[in-house]
Amino acid sequence: MTTSADAVASAHAAFHDAAHAPGMPIVAVIGDGQLARMMHTEAIELGLSLRVLAGSHDASAAQVTKDVQIGDYTSLDDLRRAVSGAAAMTFDHEHVPTEHLRTLIAEGVNVQPGPDALVNAQDKLVMRKRLRELGAPVPPFAAIESVEDARAFWQAVGGAVCLKARRGGYDGHGVWFPDSEVELVSLVEKLLGAGTPLMAEKKVALVRELSAMVARTPSGETKAWPVVESVQTDGICTQAIAPAPGLGDALQQEVRALAKTIATELGVTGALAVELFETVDVAGQPEIYVNELAMRPHNTGHWTQDGCVTSQFEQHLRAVLDYPLGSTELTAPVTVMANTLGADEDPAMPMPQRMQEVWKRYPEAKIHLYGKGHRPGRKLGHVNVSGTDVEATKKAALDAAYFIVHAQWP
Amino acid sequence: MTTSADAVASAHAAFHDAAHAPGMPIVAVIGDGQLARMMHTEAIELGLSLRVLAGSHDASAAQVTKDVQIGDYTSLDDLRRAVSGAAAMTFDHEHVPTEHLRTLIAEGVNVQPGPDALVNAQDKLVMRKRLRELGAPVPPFAAIESVEDARAFWQAVGGAVCLKARRGGYDGHGVWFPDSEVELVSLVEKLLGAGTPLMAEKKVALVRELSAMVARTPSGETKAWPVVESVQTDGICTQAIAPAPGLGDALQQEVRALAKTIATELGVTGALAVELFETVDVAGQPEIYVNELAMRPHNTGHWTQDGCVTSQFEQHLRAVLDYPLGSTELTAPVTVMANTLGADEDPAMPMPQRMQEVWKRYPEAKIHLYGKGHRPGRKLGHVNVSGTDVEATKKAALDAAYFIVHAQWP
Repeated sequence: MTTSADAVASAHAAFHDAAHAPGMPIVAVIGDGQLARMMHTEAIELGLSLRVLAGSHDASAAQVTKDVQIGDYTSLDDLRRAVSGAAAMTFDHEHVPTEHLRTLIAEGVNVQPGPDALVNAQDKLVMRKRLRELGAPVPPFAAIESVEDARAFWQAVGGAVCLKARRGGYDGHGVWFPDSEVELVSLVEKLLGAGTPLMAEKKVALVRELSAMVARTPSGETKAWPVVESVQTDGICTQAIAPAPGLGDALQQEVRALAKTIATELGVTGALAVELFETVDVAGQPEIYVNELAMRPHNTGHWTQDGCVTSQFEQHLRAVLDYPLGSTELTAPVTVMANTLGADEDPAMPMPQRMQEVWKRYPEAKIHLYGKGHRPGRKLGHVNVSGTDVEATKKAALDAAYFIVHAQWP
Repeated sequence: MTTSADAVASAHAAFHDAAHAPGMPIVAVIGDGQLARMMHTEAIELGLSLRVLAGSHDASAAQVTKDVQIGDYTSLDDLRRAVSGAAAMTFDHEHVPTEHLRTLIAEGVNVQPGPDALVNAQDKLVMRKRLRELGAPVPPFAAIESVEDARAFWQAVGGAVCLKARRGGYDGHGVWFPDSEVELVSLVEKLLGAGTPLMAEKKVALVRELSAMVARTPSGETKAWPVVESVQTDGICTQAIAPAPGLGDALQQEVRALAKTIATELGVTGALAVELFETVDVAGQPEIYVNELAMRPHNTGHWTQDGCVTSQFEQHLRAVLDYPLGSTELTAPVTVMANTLGADEDPAMPMPQRMQEVWKRYPEAKIHLYGKGHRPGRKLGHVNVSGTDVEATKKAALDAAYFIVHAQWP
């Protein structure tokens, strides 16, 4: 006799099967956030379709995708279910346990990017050591495994210390700037005591932040997008300006080449974001340092959806499937991306009305929303605006993004 | 006791509910083809999501959409189920029975476009009469309700007769070009005998075909895209070149204004395609005639996905929701769309490999596939290429589209 549970399972299986065009590869994406959601947008147009491993059916990517597997990315069995029959497995985030990835690879799963590359996006100390070996510019850094390590580093860099959790930090979480050696020591004691592995690096005299994005295929093809300026507020990316204004051609080329080298040497596949600090050297010339790596589509690449022939989401899918990469030519002289971060309070004006107000003023504003509920500071979406003048384009994007979450103009 | 069927129904309902972000409107699309599929792409980015009334779960749009209602668009109950709770109802095709639309409107459903506008896209005779009233250029035409009507029209236009079924024709179906009065009479006897309402119009000396697309909101805002040249092969659109090469500014403006007038006067909402014939008048000047109307996104507007700030699919959604319309500025000097029509035989090379071959040669080719199985002549997808030179761009798009279905270069 068929039980209710069997009947539901069987109906779901038929439903999931219907989500994929015969003969076309399935890409399994681990994670249900906006990055997976925007991959699905591109997959639809390419005639592919994703399978998403999601925490719930109403999560950002799960909302709009047909083949949703509910599960936990830390469960090997759930991962196995998600990748069954998929041509490639990729990620919306970097938190899948490395040992599970190794097991899946041993079982024949095509994991892109693989764990040897991913560890560099998961562990900041491993990444910095590896980049130093490659000759990539990184600020002075040290492992902090004791209070003694902390004191020694404080002395070595004259108190310009940025303390970081080696793993799990994002959007300003897991980063501390102690004002005194006492504060550093107290932080280190508390964090090490709580089992948080730490590193420290020298605070740089920041002029601005840049982001260099590149995609790489398992066969080794790489393609870089123009380097962008990224603006962070309280550790969260709030704007990206593409291409980075005033970045000289030589430095633009140098940074793109650096991103390609990192992708190649670390064996990254799919999209790679190399977040950089721009500083000024003793001769007054711009100088760059690598800050973070992300091995997936990245917030600083959202502008490519509306400012580039091939968006980072399409490119990521092509890359993980080892397909030839698409053109990264610009479609406008300048494109500005502004994040819509949940305001302190959710305004009474319904979201659809806010969109309409934005479009009345800026018919060129490309609003992207993630299907997420309000929470202060939460990334609810972004707005891209393309134009010819940097300041006018920036104003339009920032105004629009502000209105979306505040229901008033800045 | 819960039965298996109840359990499945309840699981599906929960699944469908999760497809829509709280506070965001649901757009119900009647039809499961590529137009609905590409609306879903844009809906995802806008933070909306569609509900699709589909014939099966593996249909083009149903494949990639979460809230799929299986049903028949000629069943009033199925339509009611599809539009329940939706902010607007719109269409992937023009075949929903008018009486059902009137019933739904009486029940409070927001049907866009409404039946009074739609009849002009459903019945060619009604449309031509209405356009003649508006002073829009149409070739001489007549209702054909008898053999006598047919003979009289043959004489009146000197044998230059194009016979058309008033309803249901598309892609060259329902259109005949009789070579003799005898052939015309025989066709008319057979078709009228089979219950097919007919009309005839004077064949024009065609220079080329054009398409003018415009979107209109219920509040009356209109926005036109640049007029394109469309190339038909055996009655099926195979290419669109945007903007139409060599169309003078004055004629470009005149045609755009004509499309806006038609949209306004007919009360069209959403996207409207005005398909036109370009001929030469007695003084050797270009002259235009309206051929067909389609009240939905249209094949001749697919180029807007990659060549325009706002695609026809996004604009259609904004229009049916009565939101302000987006910019229709070009993002490239020229964009060419080429359809991929199923070849006589499906080549052995798997589709993913064909895509890779195309991208090796043309990294700028934007491939759009509809998730459909092979059938000779079937629209399986399209390729958009943007560039600066018309001939080079056309070659790239046509080469790519040809390879996708033939697995060899033309």
